[in-house]
Amino acid sequence: MTTAGEKDAAVVSPAAGYKVIGTQPARFDGAEKVTGRATFGADVRLPSTLQAKMLRSPHAHARIKSIDTSRAEALPGVMAVVTAKDMWSLHEAPGAVDAELKFFGDNFLASDKVLFCGHPIAAVAATDQFIAEEAVKLIEVEYEELPTVLDVFEAMQDSSPLLHDNLYTSSLGKPSEKPSNISLHIQHLKGDPDKGLAEADVIIEREFRTAMVHQGYVEAHFATAHWSPEGNLTIWSNHQGHFILRDAMAKLLQLPVSKIQVIPTEVGGGFGGKAAQSQYVQPVAALLARKAGRPVRLGMSRKETFEATGPDKGSYIRLKVGATRDGKLTAVVAKAIAEVGAFPGGSVSLASTIFSAYEVPNGQVDYYEVVVNKPKSGGYRGPGSTPATFATENVVDEICEQVGIEPLEFRLRNVAQVGTVSLAGRVYQRIGFKEVMEAAHAHEHYRAPLGGPNRGRGLAVGYWHNHGGASSCNLSVNGDGSVSLVSGSVDLSGTRLTVAMQVAEALGIDLNDVRCDVADTSAVGYTYLSGGSRTAFATGLAAIKAAEEALHRMKLRAALIWQVSPDTVTYANGVFATSAGPSSGSTKRLTFKEVAAQLATTGGPISVSSSVLPQGSGVTLAAHIVDVEVDPETGKVRVLRYTAIQDVGKAVNPSLVEGQMQGGASLGVGRALWEGYQFDEKGRLLNTSFLDNKMPTAYDLPKIDTVLVEVPNPGHPYGVRGVGEVTMTPSPAALALAIHRATGVRLRELPMTPARILQKIGVIL
Amino acid sequence: MTTAGEKDAAVVSPAAGYKVIGTQPARFDGAEKVTGRATFGADVRLPSTLQAKMLRSPHAHARIKSIDTSRAEALPGVMAVVTAKDMWSLHEAPGAVDAELKFFGDNFLASDKVLFCGHPIAAVAATDQFIAEEAVKLIEVEYEELPTVLDVFEAMQDSSPLLHDNLYTSSLGKPSEKPSNISLHIQHLKGDPDKGLAEADVIIEREFRTAMVHQGYVEAHFATAHWSPEGNLTIWSNHQGHFILRDAMAKLLQLPVSKIQVIPTEVGGGFGGKAAQSQYVQPVAALLARKAGRPVRLGMSRKETFEATGPDKGSYIRLKVGATRDGKLTAVVAKAIAEVGAFPGGSVSLASTIFSAYEVPNGQVDYYEVVVNKPKSGGYRGPGSTPATFATENVVDEICEQVGIEPLEFRLRNVAQVGTVSLAGRVYQRIGFKEVMEAAHAHEHYRAPLGGPNRGRGLAVGYWHNHGGASSCNLSVNGDGSVSLVSGSVDLSGTRLTVAMQVAEALGIDLNDVRCDVADTSAVGYTYLSGGSRTAFATGLAAIKAAEEALHRMKLRAALIWQVSPDTVTYANGVFATSAGPSSGSTKRLTFKEVAAQLATTGGPISVSSSVLPQGSGVTLAAHIVDVEVDPETGKVRVLRYTAIQDVGKAVNPSLVEGQMQGGASLGVGRALWEGYQFDEKGRLLNTSFLDNKMPTAYDLPKIDTVLVEVPNPGHPYGVRGVGEVTMTPSPAALALAIHRATGVRLRELPMTPARILQKIGVIL
Repeated sequence: MTTAGEKDAAVVSPAAGYKVIGTQPARFDGAEKVTGRATFGADVRLPSTLQAKMLRSPHAHARIKSIDTSRAEALPGVMAVVTAKDMWSLHEAPGAVDAELKFFGDNFLASDKVLFCGHPIAAVAATDQFIAEEAVKLIEVEYEELPTVLDVFEAMQDSSPLLHDNLYTSSLGKPSEKPSNISLHIQHLKGDPDKGLAEADVIIEREFRTAMVHQGYVEAHFATAHWSPEGNLTIWSNHQGHFILRDAMAKLLQLPVSKIQVIPTEVGGGFGGKAAQSQYVQPVAALLARKAGRPVRLGMSRKETFEATGPDKGSYIRLKVGATRDGKLTAVVAKAIAEVGAFPGGSVSLASTIFSAYEVPNGQVDYYEVVVNKPKSGGYRGPGSTPATFATENVVDEICEQVGIEPLEFRLRNVAQVGTVSLAGRVYQRIGFKEVMEAAHAHEHYRAPLGGPNRGRGLAVGYWHNHGGASSCNLSVNGDGSVSLVSGSVDLSGTRLTVAMQVAEALGIDLNDVRCDVADTSAVGYTYLSGGSRTAFATGLAAIKAAEEALHRMKLRAALIWQVSPDTVTYANGVFATSAGPSSGSTKRLTFKEVAAQLATTGGPISVSSSVLPQGSGVTLAAHIVDVEVDPETGKVRVLRYTAIQDVGKAVNPSLVEGQMQGGASLGVGRALWEGYQFDEKGRLLNTSFLDNKMPTAYDLPKIDTVLVEVPNPGHPYGVRGVGEVTMTPSPAALALAIHRATGVRLRELPMTPARILQKIGVIL
Repeated sequence: MTTAGEKDAAVVSPAAGYKVIGTQPARFDGAEKVTGRATFGADVRLPSTLQAKMLRSPHAHARIKSIDTSRAEALPGVMAVVTAKDMWSLHEAPGAVDAELKFFGDNFLASDKVLFCGHPIAAVAATDQFIAEEAVKLIEVEYEELPTVLDVFEAMQDSSPLLHDNLYTSSLGKPSEKPSNISLHIQHLKGDPDKGLAEADVIIEREFRTAMVHQGYVEAHFATAHWSPEGNLTIWSNHQGHFILRDAMAKLLQLPVSKIQVIPTEVGGGFGGKAAQSQYVQPVAALLARKAGRPVRLGMSRKETFEATGPDKGSYIRLKVGATRDGKLTAVVAKAIAEVGAFPGGSVSLASTIFSAYEVPNGQVDYYEVVVNKPKSGGYRGPGSTPATFATENVVDEICEQVGIEPLEFRLRNVAQVGTVSLAGRVYQRIGFKEVMEAAHAHEHYRAPLGGPNRGRGLAVGYWHNHGGASSCNLSVNGDGSVSLVSGSVDLSGTRLTVAMQVAEALGIDLNDVRCDVADTSAVGYTYLSGGSRTAFATGLAAIKAAEEALHRMKLRAALIWQVSPDTVTYANGVFATSAGPSSGSTKRLTFKEVAAQLATTGGPISVSSSVLPQGSGVTLAAHIVDVEVDPETGKVRVLRYTAIQDVGKAVNPSLVEGQMQGGASLGVGRALWEGYQFDEKGRLLNTSFLDNKMPTAYDLPKIDTVLVEVPNPGHPYGVRGVGEVTMTPSPAALALAIHRATGVRLRELPMTPARILQKIGVIL
């Protein structure tokens, strides 16, 4: 890793002078995790816990005519069997549940229809896992099979079978008159696209497709649920947001929020797949535990995880882009269709990330979401941005070719800057897009010799806007001057450490004196999920706010001890000082620890709770440079060299940022070359294991070099910017361009498997 | 139960109008506990946990010449053996540890001497309990036996063997020149005692003795300790104060406080015996876990609990009391000696509770603490107050007899009132002493016929000052208007409920919408232990403070929604209202729940952390009336009828207060009649089981009637006063006086066993 600021004066780096920020101590959770001691979702074992299993649909589309659970219930050892009825009967009017909530619930426990292969229908809790599995087979379901809808274009036809008879298109804010498989149509419009195209010297129009793809987190979903005799529900789960989970459970189970406590475990990978509406096991475990009167643990196998959690949406994107001969973009017209799976909902960022790295004067983006008989889609690291970037950067490259301008030069001529308004209407504040492009341009990799035949180099830039959202912390100053801190943020990526580092910096104390833990939903204020690249930023802000309040109160205590006005007390480098008071002239000093030691006699404990609701953790850009070699006989792509360059704001802990960048690029390579859902004509997922749905391992990748460009985020006192998601977005685009340089062919569909490459280069398979 | 306020206009009862305070919902923890689902200290089971056992001294006083642990360490399955060296070697200068800390540590792991039978010397952690027990037998200790000191008077002689060669008497604030077994001498002086005695018409001088007595909590001490690879220590334990425990561990193990997290379990009875310095298993479990690199669970048997935890001090009290013929006390001169066991320290309240229910113009109390070769004493429900009351009330009764004034009439003539200064210098604020005595006087029991021979009725009043101390809470308003609350107070007596009730009252919302949990040391601000009758009072204050702050912020949100000045917004009965704004004239209303639903769009979460440091939870008095029948042949005392009358301030939940009163009276009966440590001449405890150290059961007691006198505490907005400890203090005195009325003899030593009664009434045993 190099920090661009060191070698390129054009790259902005924040003022020096930090003591903790920018250092690279080890993660608080590192040793626990690598030694196998950390408690993940599957590791929770309460006494008397029952084990559970779900019954899943073999059909992708069918009406449930009847469910007979009597034989399963009669099996010795079975303690509870539940179906959707057990949930909706908790509602005052089971037949009139809010449509959104009903769709949400039906996804993990089907009511009247099954809508994808693997759709859960019932669940069993038994004294052991084997009995539960046996009992599931005894549940008798009578189905009426229905025609399967697997293709978005087919689904959009009026003649298509409908998945839901109560789903209406929300089209530009208005509901459609008739039910439809199109759940959403939104449009972004800027300037005059027709005029823009008319002004263009070159127009490129292309179509792109990306397959549904799974996040591939190593740990499946697990939940253990326990009801107290008083009706309080406790859930342990490996979710990315325990408050989100709690509030969803309250709605589903019709409980006051205060009656639910969610205790987050460690999370063995999430990448968005355990975020937001990713409740697959938790409500079912709770229903089973309620019925059985004992704790219930429910998990998923790998096959179940692939079949019935939330992969990233499949996509179709058609781009029509105009540019002038001198290399200025004039217009972008886009139509994007997202394959959202069996139920509507989720991120619409695909629509807002098309050409968002660029200043485009005119544009129109029409974005459609379409339901099909596949698993309901979920979030995945900068959701929508990777397909949008794949399409955008491929077209940009073709324009460069047409107008004969060097690709980075073209990008720099069109780069979005402070004040740029994106096609989706976002006005950029201080961003580092230009700095990232310049760092890429300056990088030795960009012009190094390729060193062999069948090789090519690709460069692409990817955008992500990052999220904000509510975060809360509690901070206590201990009597020995150490600080105990908890936050409401699940720690996916070392944020216990990076939040503690911000507190140590804000308080001017040693990091070794700050502990940061993740608190359950009862102990700390509401905190949005760990996702959207928000945690180090937003929870950091909450922690800094708490630290500043604690420091203010410490100053009051010092003033009390000295019997001077608080205004006269200064604090720097861990020392309070004043020159006021009886013996004025001489400066009195007390260290942070010395004031802490006197808390008990100067008014009692200092404990602070803070909450923040910031509006975004800083728009950012990544540039990936990748070299590949394509075997012309097999179509196999070997990744030879990889450099990831990214505006990371101020890196709290550069080593953790580097890890994010390397991890994101790895996911991007997998998505580019191998990963993607494959269904048969009946809607059965064909690749339900890591053997069939190949993800990159260390053997498949070179060392990924990183360049951290530090352009501080003005929305954070230390300039922290979200860094997690943009790490992946340019990767498939960069690989497509590298393959183009190596082979001369342009691939416009993900994954770019050997078969597709061979087909393109004319080898008949 | 009756509430005195209902029938006696003289008894102050707070203004009506509470919605939640004063109601009697069931405890939040009740069903969990009675169904066996609650997690107590022994119930914590982490994966790979080792089981541990301590080696204990067979001698009451001996020098440790050597400890050889090699054979134990060699036993297969043994993972760690520790001695005191393992602890002190963590200190920078093991030989120069602060004396107080050294005494503290030596109590649970002897360094160079053993000072009581059962004194721990080493501990073993092994893969199972049986191996640990086997290994303990393999540890070889070479002792040099020393003369045993068991009697305080002997111990106070210059010629007595010394327990500690570095213990100096702290006499009236100054250290003695020579080491001594007398660790402390304090004196309270008021007015002119000689003059007071000279003014007396009657002077009574008597001596009283009480034996060391165990609290008899059902659950022994347990701790499970776990170190993370990063060196963070987590401890689960059934301690009465997890912050106290954490801070003690930090000092003993030389860790920053922030590196220790203590997670409190439920506590199966404490009564002070699991408070303050009651660390017997936690540091040892931590040392073993540190050495073994695995979690370690260490518990105690009943025998170990009796032998080596902290019983209440034994006491000797000599009182010389003067009064006039017309029934006014003129002077009290007291000498009290507390038998503190092997190490100095603990509560000195015995000194401050002598005659503290009365207005005494002149007095002197000299209080000594003396170490002897018995277990180090601990706290026990109003520590010192029960022996002090036993002495006080016996003498008061003799004075009544001498001056011929009806006992309650005499007490009312001398009762302490607002502005009274106690012998210990405490100035009383609003107290309900007179009201309690009047309620006793008015009670039907006080004059009911006894109904048989060998029967007698005793009445005594007992005082307790109750404690304050730091408490902290975190409170979050959830999106559905329910409230999640945690406090740092271990719940011994239903305080999760009584704190939640105060929050519901303060917020004007339904109790069903408030959850209160106990948070671990990381998640909430410093909170002093649950003891000193402080929790419902002090933690209630912290919770009310948090609720008021939350309500204030909710009001700001309502104002923001309406776009009006916050000053115009009122709140009552769960509804915010304003008449200001554009359409002024019409009143706008939003319920608490409606404003809560808009938190996310009006600035984000509301979460509040509060800490308080109140200075006392209200001085209080209890009067017990008890009827007994004494079998003249066996000396057996049967308790026929019992009425407990108490100033409870405002009872948050009268049913829980009644439970406290009944429980305290029961403990008092046991202490009065049966319980007390018996040692042989070598200092070996003879009664180490519940068979030999009899405690009352439901079979031994009549139903205990209660009268709640509600004199609000001015230091709390709802008038809450500590109620837990004073429940026991008058009980032995009342029984002694009842026995006197039944038999004609006065007993001045606890316990008043059948043998002692028979001896007094002249039956030769």
